[in-house]
Amino acid sequence: MTTRPQIKLGLSMRYLGYHAAAWRHPDADPAGASKLSHFIRVAQTAEAAKFDMVFLADGIGIRARDEPPGALSQSAQTAELEPLTLLSALSAVTSRIGLVSTASTTYNEPFHIARKFASLDHISGGRAGWNIVTSWSDAEARNFNREEHVEYATRYERAAEFVEVVKGLWDSWEEDALCMDKASGRFFDPAKLHALNHVGKHFRVQGPLSVKRTPQGRPILVQAGVSEVGMEIAAASAEVVYAVSHDLETGLGYYNNLKDRLEKYGRGRDELKVMPGLTIFTGHTESEAREKYDMMNALVPPQLGLSYLYGQMGDLSAYPLDGPVPEPTNPKVRSIARNLLTMARNDNLSIRDLYTITAAGFGTRVLIGTGPQVVDEMEAWVDAGAADGFNICPPILPLGLDDFVTFIMPELRRRGMFRTEYEGTTLRENLGAKMPKNRYS
Amino acid sequence: MTTRPQIKLGLSMRYLGYHAAAWRHPDADPAGASKLSHFIRVAQTAEAAKFDMVFLADGIGIRARDEPPGALSQSAQTAELEPLTLLSALSAVTSRIGLVSTASTTYNEPFHIARKFASLDHISGGRAGWNIVTSWSDAEARNFNREEHVEYATRYERAAEFVEVVKGLWDSWEEDALCMDKASGRFFDPAKLHALNHVGKHFRVQGPLSVKRTPQGRPILVQAGVSEVGMEIAAASAEVVYAVSHDLETGLGYYNNLKDRLEKYGRGRDELKVMPGLTIFTGHTESEAREKYDMMNALVPPQLGLSYLYGQMGDLSAYPLDGPVPEPTNPKVRSIARNLLTMARNDNLSIRDLYTITAAGFGTRVLIGTGPQVVDEMEAWVDAGAADGFNICPPILPLGLDDFVTFIMPELRRRGMFRTEYEGTTLRENLGAKMPKNRYS
Repeated sequence: MTTRPQIKLGLSMRYLGYHAAAWRHPDADPAGASKLSHFIRVAQTAEAAKFDMVFLADGIGIRARDEPPGALSQSAQTAELEPLTLLSALSAVTSRIGLVSTASTTYNEPFHIARKFASLDHISGGRAGWNIVTSWSDAEARNFNREEHVEYATRYERAAEFVEVVKGLWDSWEEDALCMDKASGRFFDPAKLHALNHVGKHFRVQGPLSVKRTPQGRPILVQAGVSEVGMEIAAASAEVVYAVSHDLETGLGYYNNLKDRLEKYGRGRDELKVMPGLTIFTGHTESEAREKYDMMNALVPPQLGLSYLYGQMGDLSAYPLDGPVPEPTNPKVRSIARNLLTMARNDNLSIRDLYTITAAGFGTRVLIGTGPQVVDEMEAWVDAGAADGFNICPPILPLGLDDFVTFIMPELRRRGMFRTEYEGTTLRENLGAKMPKNRYS
Repeated sequence: MTTRPQIKLGLSMRYLGYHAAAWRHPDADPAGASKLSHFIRVAQTAEAAKFDMVFLADGIGIRARDEPPGALSQSAQTAELEPLTLLSALSAVTSRIGLVSTASTTYNEPFHIARKFASLDHISGGRAGWNIVTSWSDAEARNFNREEHVEYATRYERAAEFVEVVKGLWDSWEEDALCMDKASGRFFDPAKLHALNHVGKHFRVQGPLSVKRTPQGRPILVQAGVSEVGMEIAAASAEVVYAVSHDLETGLGYYNNLKDRLEKYGRGRDELKVMPGLTIFTGHTESEAREKYDMMNALVPPQLGLSYLYGQMGDLSAYPLDGPVPEPTNPKVRSIARNLLTMARNDNLSIRDLYTITAAGFGTRVLIGTGPQVVDEMEAWVDAGAADGFNICPPILPLGLDDFVTFIMPELRRRGMFRTEYEGTTLRENLGAKMPKNRYS
């Protein structure tokens, strides 16, 4: 019997996977991202493999832009299903796996969010999670009565207040408020139902919530912020953080930075799980894994590939794809472009090479190798103290998930790193997270 | 073979049913309204009986008030599940029945509503419907940054614009926009994706919607308004109207008033189905039906019963329950109170009698009798041209639905008034409603 700490695993399943050309793969159903049957297949496979949770990232609109021209019509990241609606449907055909949806604090109201996630928590028997984001695109702003995105400080100030209101609403009903005494005719104990009466800078919300206390006390809170305020929100409230670090040193720094913040909120270092994202190409051999990677990259149309560089480096469509990466013409180039350029120079990358790297995992860290090779990397991060688990972002679904189950999962279990059966019935139990106390109890 | 026009049937399934004391019934699961299993039982029963749709009314908060004191804690209409979340879950365990959810235009944004209902339409294979409401309570306003409810004119002006924006977003993708051509790398035809660019008094919404055109073209639109603007919104856009008329004369007037408005929107009289609500107590004999009615009424605690009169007549708790209904002390009594009072005088009703009538069906018209007696009433409305179908609001669930299936359904079918099998796979097909044309196609 192993005493090794168990890692947590999430599965990101937005669109058809994280590779820009997933829909062109010969085995892909290109319409899958709009089909419930596709997501049932994915979620049930992940549940059979005992993943802690499936996760849906989100944007409230089409963020992809037609830059350079022609790129947009090559992108499958344009049509999808609304994530909460989708996860609610999946809750009826799964029984153990956590269901985590993204929702923006910038373009929502806290009462709606508190109500919907509390409902999902009931419907799923305690498997709901809310990934708290503030959104970032002008495309979304323009769907909500604005010309451009709300600026950072206001957005995060609103987010922090939003989360507090939602948590307050989730405490409306004490655990034992519903006595439901048919004999006396008393349905609930009014001393155990609480109006929030929140009056703040961004919100006035009276409450109480019209959904009783949920199986998990409250849904699991997830965050992915790397900014100061985002990390403080995570430290104050979240049970899970999706991290985006690409190298161990950065990952370790982020991990410790975040965990160090927990103490001032009276929380232990174990109460927040840090789960970096991984896009994995794997197979029986390293060369098979590499072939899969190369095959999918060859499916990226040039305009679509260039669109992945456009935001950082502008329009490179006038340059030869297999030639060197030009110096940015914009003198106020951002540090992320400078890093891309340094990478291109150091590794002698062409324009095609450079966009291939970013398009392969939508910016997530990419690993290519056999099961043992990939698990070596995962284990190194866990042992170094840079990860409590991983958020798996397959390049293509369901194929990439099947590969993970076939090649990675047995190796994780051989090393005693991952469960063979769920510990509990709720996401909170499987994450080993504490039940929250109701502020009124 | 009958050529008789077929009626349409909806099932309202909010809370545990429409009777104020449903939760106290000996066979009721008082916690049912927060359980998915309860609603699966109800929806699957309705589907087996070939109902056109299940329907969830909604309020975004606890509308019930503690007037007179003590009433609130006796009400089960305080804790429930959010309807879209719930219907999404039900979509995965049903296959033919329509799924209609209420959503308010006053406390939502059109992009969210367009996106969620379009997603439900995809997930359910073309069975989604949106019941358009403007909300009415201060309790809801206070959950959304306001002190009191938005006044009528603004609310309905916003509603009309809201519906137009949502319909516009639903046209974003033409039917055949997604070519998904793996060979060329073109995912969609950009000439067939349209930004809405709506700029109006209440909303600026750019679009396009990030959900492709749905199986029904767009979800079915439902309305329940009796006001001028509400009826115009219904005439312009709705396929179904839930009516609340209590007598045939009023019902007939409402029906014709509404149908007469269709022509100016270029719509035929058949394109909008008028479905009055009915709360039915039935059994093998009239006396058995009456016994069920009396038994449930006896379960209404006095404060809860008085709360149903409070809004119209004020606090009557100081008067003997079995004594006469007092004259209203408020000289500016509203017409609805005057009607209640006239009814009480004419029929020699006590206070208890009066609240019993309103608490039995939450204001819906109540019918008590055997299958043939109830169907006589239904048939009379259909033959008179006052109804195209009915929205069944059982006093208690699932019991009242089971009674409907046992006692009413066979009689409806014996008279050739209701289907024995679904005509199609989508709600639109079963309602016999036309596919909407995309404005750009």
